[in-house]
Amino acid sequence: MKYFDKIDKIKYEGSKSSNPFAFKYYNSNELIFGKKMKDHLKFSMAYWHTMTGKGVDPFGAETMERPWDDEQDEMEKAKIRVKVAFEFMEKLGLEYFAFHDRDIAPEGETLSESNKNLDVIVDLIEKEMKRTGIKLLWGTANLFYNKRFVNGASTSPNADIFAFSAAQVKKAMEITKRLNGAGYTFWGGREGYETLLNTDMKLEQDNFARFLKMAVVYAKEIGFEGQFYIEPKPKEPTKHQYDYDSATVISFLRKHGLDKDFKLNIETNHATLAMHTMNHEIRLAADNDMLGSVDANQGDLLLGWDTDQFPTNVYDTTLTMYEVLRAGGLKSGGLNFDAKVKRSSFTKNDLLIAHIAGMDAYAAGLRIASKLLEDGVFENNLKDRYRSYNEGIGKQIVSKEVGFKELEEYVMNKKELEKNESGKQELLEAILNQYIIG
Amino acid sequence: MKYFDKIDKIKYEGSKSSNPFAFKYYNSNELIFGKKMKDHLKFSMAYWHTMTGKGVDPFGAETMERPWDDEQDEMEKAKIRVKVAFEFMEKLGLEYFAFHDRDIAPEGETLSESNKNLDVIVDLIEKEMKRTGIKLLWGTANLFYNKRFVNGASTSPNADIFAFSAAQVKKAMEITKRLNGAGYTFWGGREGYETLLNTDMKLEQDNFARFLKMAVVYAKEIGFEGQFYIEPKPKEPTKHQYDYDSATVISFLRKHGLDKDFKLNIETNHATLAMHTMNHEIRLAADNDMLGSVDANQGDLLLGWDTDQFPTNVYDTTLTMYEVLRAGGLKSGGLNFDAKVKRSSFTKNDLLIAHIAGMDAYAAGLRIASKLLEDGVFENNLKDRYRSYNEGIGKQIVSKEVGFKELEEYVMNKKELEKNESGKQELLEAILNQYIIG
Amino acid sequence: MKYFDKIDKIKYEGSKSSNPFAFKYYNSNELIFGKKMKDHLKFSMAYWHTMTGKGVDPFGAETMERPWDDEQDEMEKAKIRVKVAFEFMEKLGLEYFAFHDRDIAPEGETLSESNKNLDVIVDLIEKEMKRTGIKLLWGTANLFYNKRFVNGASTSPNADIFAFSAAQVKKAMEITKRLNGAGYTFWGGREGYETLLNTDMKLEQDNFARFLKMAVVYAKEIGFEGQFYIEPKPKEPTKHQYDYDSATVISFLRKHGLDKDFKLNIETNHATLAMHTMNHEIRLAADNDMLGSVDANQGDLLLGWDTDQFPTNVYDTTLTMYEVLRAGGLKSGGLNFDAKVKRSSFTKNDLLIAHIAGMDAYAAGLRIASKLLEDGVFENNLKDRYRSYNEGIGKQIVSKEVGFKELEEYVMNKKELEKNESGKQELLEAILNQYIIG
Amino acid sequence: MKYFDKIDKIKYEGSKSSNPFAFKYYNSNELIFGKKMKDHLKFSMAYWHTMTGKGVDPFGAETMERPWDDEQDEMEKAKIRVKVAFEFMEKLGLEYFAFHDRDIAPEGETLSESNKNLDVIVDLIEKEMKRTGIKLLWGTANLFYNKRFVNGASTSPNADIFAFSAAQVKKAMEITKRLNGAGYTFWGGREGYETLLNTDMKLEQDNFARFLKMAVVYAKEIGFEGQFYIEPKPKEPTKHQYDYDSATVISFLRKHGLDKDFKLNIETNHATLAMHTMNHEIRLAADNDMLGSVDANQGDLLLGWDTDQFPTNVYDTTLTMYEVLRAGGLKSGGLNFDAKVKRSSFTKNDLLIAHIAGMDAYAAGLRIASKLLEDGVFENNLKDRYRSYNEGIGKQIVSKEVGFKELEEYVMNKKELEKNESGKQELLEAILNQYIIG
Repeated sequence: MKYFDKIDKIKYEGSKSSNPFAFKYYNSNELIFGKKMKDHLKFSMAYWHTMTGKGVDPFGAETMERPWDDEQDEMEKAKIRVKVAFEFMEKLGLEYFAFHDRDIAPEGETLSESNKNLDVIVDLIEKEMKRTGIKLLWGTANLFYNKRFVNGASTSPNADIFAFSAAQVKKAMEITKRLNGAGYTFWGGREGYETLLNTDMKLEQDNFARFLKMAVVYAKEIGFEGQFYIEPKPKEPTKHQYDYDSATVISFLRKHGLDKDFKLNIETNHATLAMHTMNHEIRLAADNDMLGSVDANQGDLLLGWDTDQFPTNVYDTTLTMYEVLRAGGLKSGGLNFDAKVKRSSFTKNDLLIAHIAGMDAYAAGLRIASKLLEDGVFENNLKDRYRSYNEGIGKQIVSKEVGFKELEEYVMNKKELEKNESGKQELLEAILNQYIIG
Repeated sequence: MKYFDKIDKIKYEGSKSSNPFAFKYYNSNELIFGKKMKDHLKFSMAYWHTMTGKGVDPFGAETMERPWDDEQDEMEKAKIRVKVAFEFMEKLGLEYFAFHDRDIAPEGETLSESNKNLDVIVDLIEKEMKRTGIKLLWGTANLFYNKRFVNGASTSPNADIFAFSAAQVKKAMEITKRLNGAGYTFWGGREGYETLLNTDMKLEQDNFARFLKMAVVYAKEIGFEGQFYIEPKPKEPTKHQYDYDSATVISFLRKHGLDKDFKLNIETNHATLAMHTMNHEIRLAADNDMLGSVDANQGDLLLGWDTDQFPTNVYDTTLTMYEVLRAGGLKSGGLNFDAKVKRSSFTKNDLLIAHIAGMDAYAAGLRIASKLLEDGVFENNLKDRYRSYNEGIGKQIVSKEVGFKELEEYVMNKKELEKNESGKQELLEAILNQYIIG
Repeated sequence: MKYFDKIDKIKYEGSKSSNPFAFKYYNSNELIFGKKMKDHLKFSMAYWHTMTGKGVDPFGAETMERPWDDEQDEMEKAKIRVKVAFEFMEKLGLEYFAFHDRDIAPEGETLSESNKNLDVIVDLIEKEMKRTGIKLLWGTANLFYNKRFVNGASTSPNADIFAFSAAQVKKAMEITKRLNGAGYTFWGGREGYETLLNTDMKLEQDNFARFLKMAVVYAKEIGFEGQFYIEPKPKEPTKHQYDYDSATVISFLRKHGLDKDFKLNIETNHATLAMHTMNHEIRLAADNDMLGSVDANQGDLLLGWDTDQFPTNVYDTTLTMYEVLRAGGLKSGGLNFDAKVKRSSFTKNDLLIAHIAGMDAYAAGLRIASKLLEDGVFENNLKDRYRSYNEGIGKQIVSKEVGFKELEEYVMNKKELEKNESGKQELLEAILNQYIIG
Repeated sequence: MKYFDKIDKIKYEGSKSSNPFAFKYYNSNELIFGKKMKDHLKFSMAYWHTMTGKGVDPFGAETMERPWDDEQDEMEKAKIRVKVAFEFMEKLGLEYFAFHDRDIAPEGETLSESNKNLDVIVDLIEKEMKRTGIKLLWGTANLFYNKRFVNGASTSPNADIFAFSAAQVKKAMEITKRLNGAGYTFWGGREGYETLLNTDMKLEQDNFARFLKMAVVYAKEIGFEGQFYIEPKPKEPTKHQYDYDSATVISFLRKHGLDKDFKLNIETNHATLAMHTMNHEIRLAADNDMLGSVDANQGDLLLGWDTDQFPTNVYDTTLTMYEVLRAGGLKSGGLNFDAKVKRSSFTKNDLLIAHIAGMDAYAAGLRIASKLLEDGVFENNLKDRYRSYNEGIGKQIVSKEVGFKELEEYVMNKKELEKNESGKQELLEAILNQYIIG
């Protein structure tokens, strides 16, 4: 049975189209810097939001119309969903997806039963992947939903929960490998605390590091060569999460000697919840050679929780793609739509429309960003702005030839210091507007 | 002496221009809905930021290069500034300005001396206004800078300060009338409290109302027919300001029977400091027939203070102009650039560039908003979405023909309620993008 | 069957007790200003959190151990819960409770079935109330959980949903009357919007007013004399809620001529989500004669969502009770624990402990506040601080004998204005500490 | 001349005293864990706020009554201030102070003149230190006020400014050494950016590291053995500061091999501006062996800027001192009052009162924290909560004897996992209240 059969495969119709089921900016095979749009963007469907999200919020019940969920048997429903997922991705031309273990197959009474459920569904997924050529961007394990994780997973005060989490991740890594996943992500939704009054933060963080090291070791053991990611988020569900933001995660990885084994999976809404811009988070990761993948969504900066909205703000998508291009692209990573349709966008067609909105916003952002780079708009300004470090005293500073004494001497002997120059922020913003609105 | 003589009058060169001293979107005489762009937008220069702002911040000294401030005598400097202000406005084609009393003329030892200073400068301004045709959007009194206002002005616990504030506003109203100001604004920067522990909020708010009533009475007395505005801001400098946001001000005005005498002067950055969108604030004012004027700037939603940046975000300018057009335009009000160049944009040319950036962003926003309205993009959706209130039970609800009993009966007798429809937020956002990025 | 039979009725043991199941500060019959503590505080159990809350959060499943919920039949479960609720309240000496219709009885297939379910359970509750003397603080209807309210209840674009909401509230008012509820509360969780792009705010707000008027009319019709409350909250679940904060609600009520029929039910966590202190919100309500009742909880100011924690911060409880005492007490209202145990406090005993923590924090706050008032700590300071309005020019200002001209004359003739005085904030905070920590 | 001669040396009078010029909780020589209160707390006066702060805010002029500033000659004024500073510290029994170079002596026309000014004042300070026994907690250089730092100091795009900053810090280190300062602090108020559009973040951060290394080298060269500190702050004055929070600074130091040379100077208000609790920031620093010193103040969590209020919240002071005691005390560091009296607390006596308020709040916090530790309130709970890591599988996890395979096997073979236990947050908060309010 098909669920989107009344809608044709979504096509590029250009910016004047008023067809809600067409791309206005995303032209998958168009070349940008000699590379296809789709290979720059590598859009991925998030199985959790798109396939299993139901529109629940802390004050309200499910709203989503998902006819494929009418089936009552959980395993049957999971099988149907696999079909729907691939039908949906084909329709949109999405070439990647990402999942948690518990999104794709129901949890059983025991871990062993859960694993069996996974195996059945993974068989199906594998077939669909072969049939369609769609690939797995990354897999992960859900270590936050079940009540056993109430006090954390690898940071639980209960060692048995650490053990259980290890066993669950082991399996999730195995199926990710089997599906040839390009990556494996750790999002520590419960790895944090509610109150320091009852928390041994040092032990918890050390345990978290031990857990990650076990994963690295096990990856080698099974020959999994995908990229490991950590996904920063400052809070929610817990009051304070250890993977607070990019800087915190980089610090943690470096402290525990894990910085060569992990990169970051950076989410727009998590960036702003941590009070950073998304481009800051990407730049910081790239500067530290830790840019991995992107969870593409957007938050509402006037709200204090994770709204995971589909990305439509073109300033954001432009600046995100600008940083991505500047960093040389995403390598193993992609743009995963960790985004949910609004609770009031409850029809199945809203799912298509929301993805189209997001894909178009990112495609437009990519095009604008590529032109900004091509024209050297910001890069030439940077070169000029920092030119004093390419010669004279600036060069000596950079090459560490001088210290405080030499610099004092330099200053004392110089009649007048070089004048400061305007930062030109308004001009740069105005030029950015010319590129965005044309 | 001229200070911007190396720059020609700023002209419209279209969106492809790379001339920093040209408009890319603002084409003053272009007709939109049969009205000139400049009459839709009514841009105004803020005397305080543009003429007297020096780049001070809580941690740093002045940075701005303002050659016209080299003069040491305060009155001479004030006179020079008048010339510069009009030269600047002419260069940009700004047809309005706004000022506080203390921006244009230095405060004297006594109120009477301050008033004399004002008279001298107002003479000059009047001449320049005649010469250039530039108009006064609104005047106001600075009741927050001098240390006498440390505990408030009309809400001071010290009755003498109330009296002083009254006398100062009296004069400010007189000069505003003399300069044929289209409005007079009250921004209560110190009308609030630092801690409730020491505050009689009721007395303070009642005094504030008494003060405003005196202003209304005095306006009639002197025949000032300009529009009174209150400018909401939630906090900063005080911990809590009484004119918190549009809803709060409307409530206050209504309570004290002042709602016919005042409208709102709404500022973008103040809206977001109060955790509202700018379009919400304008819509609310318009719905209550209290939309007056706009302080056009933008904040940084990741920062918690008033950054008063020049407006460059085209989503914001589009949605602001959309609400303004929808409300039938600004009448007595205009778009006043209550915006300061960044502290690091310290050259005098940055002043021009920043205003160009803001004018272009609003011009682009106006054009986009007018097309959205013309095409009925959102309005047709609204009509359809709320159609159930135009007939049947909905109509009866609106016309108050039914009560709880009738509605219960209606529900009990109806087999099935009308289905809810999708809110289509992602679709609407995607369509908005097509209008913005073209 | 009893569920808390291993714990004795909670007794007051004083501040040195280390018994987790004893009050350290709450001594119900102790007289404060000649009135029993329990009559000042009027603690109320929130049926939703305490009886039906399960520890779900946006990322996790139920955690709560609630043996009384083992029963599978929904109506049987509801009956058991009534018993547990009263056992629980008796154990703690809680003399009030509050509920939504859907907390106490399951929703049926039809409204009529839901109403029947309610009638069965209300019978039981009535008996328990008679048996124990426990009273209903207020009732309300849940107009936010069911998916029919996805676009709002009385502000839905779908008139049938308005009608349904009316019918549901009609019944909720009837059972509240039957149980002799001292009040009836409206919390508009879905009365707001997700995006202005699709919202006719004016129609929605007018409909909301129409709805409230119908309630007022129906109350008279059935002789319900309880107090109506509106409970402000700025956001969550919706992006923007119409009952934003106290000022907004007061404005709305006044505009629609409803200000005599409603008072406010103010919640601590909602106050801070709106960026106000709780004492500000209470003071504002009291100053407008609209202080009704209190939802006693606390938020985490470093988090951006409604955490509804049990109140333990004694600064907050002291300042809340200070404002309540200053306003002459709560009249029809009380302190309703709209608070949930932390998701990780999942044992049934945590429920007792959390209520004890909250009751003790408020009892301590009451005692401290009463001493502050008795000693005139803040009130004497206020009298002194504002003394200038009791004589001379200040008195004339207050009695409206003077206008701008007279005040200007006064200022011009006065050699020197009265000096401003220190606000003494640090001193007042230090004195407050002496009262709190003893 | 004496400026506080009407007030006696502030004495401890106990918690019942109503003398505003007496300590209620701070009893300097009282022993806590065998150590004098004053040696636990090591209170320090911040020269900038207390001696040179004038009550300016972004919207208002100076308010402070500081008779010692009547002198017009800047050097004479600086000399008088030294006398006043020591008179003030003696009066309060403050045994430490901290300063920026530009607080104590005016900046000259040239660096060389500035350095001469410093030498003159440092002579005076040295004498006063000898006379009184008061010590220097730390020195620092003001690299943010002068307009030359508009684009940063060591992170300026202008190499000459890097050089100037180096020369200025060199001198500041020299005078700190001469005054036997226990530490030297770097607060990078301008080391950050306004917009990424014009920022080469990597070069700027690398330059910052180069700068710090030069400082380390120069310290060895001159034999300065005081502790270097970095003070985290997320933003303000710049939009984004590189020393964002403790985690970020630790990351930066570790990356550049500077983690053995620096510790953190953590400020309460900076912690909350970064959306962390103060105790989190201290715990994190201590867990990484980087706890250095504390800037003792408090912010207003409902405001988004640095209010630098005197610390009066006893929850905060208790939890801060708890973490400090738990970490073994502050070693080289102390509690520096980086706090300013409210702008409306403008009398010179408010300065005394505010310091008394802060010292009392911290003394009370210390006493409460010491009892909490003595009774093992939280520590015993921790031991119990994490006991599973001391034996069996938990011990094997900690000692790295097991990996994913062994843990999977363990889980598969175990019939039932150990049950999770309640986090008991409400209980712990209630117990904390008993310790605070007694």
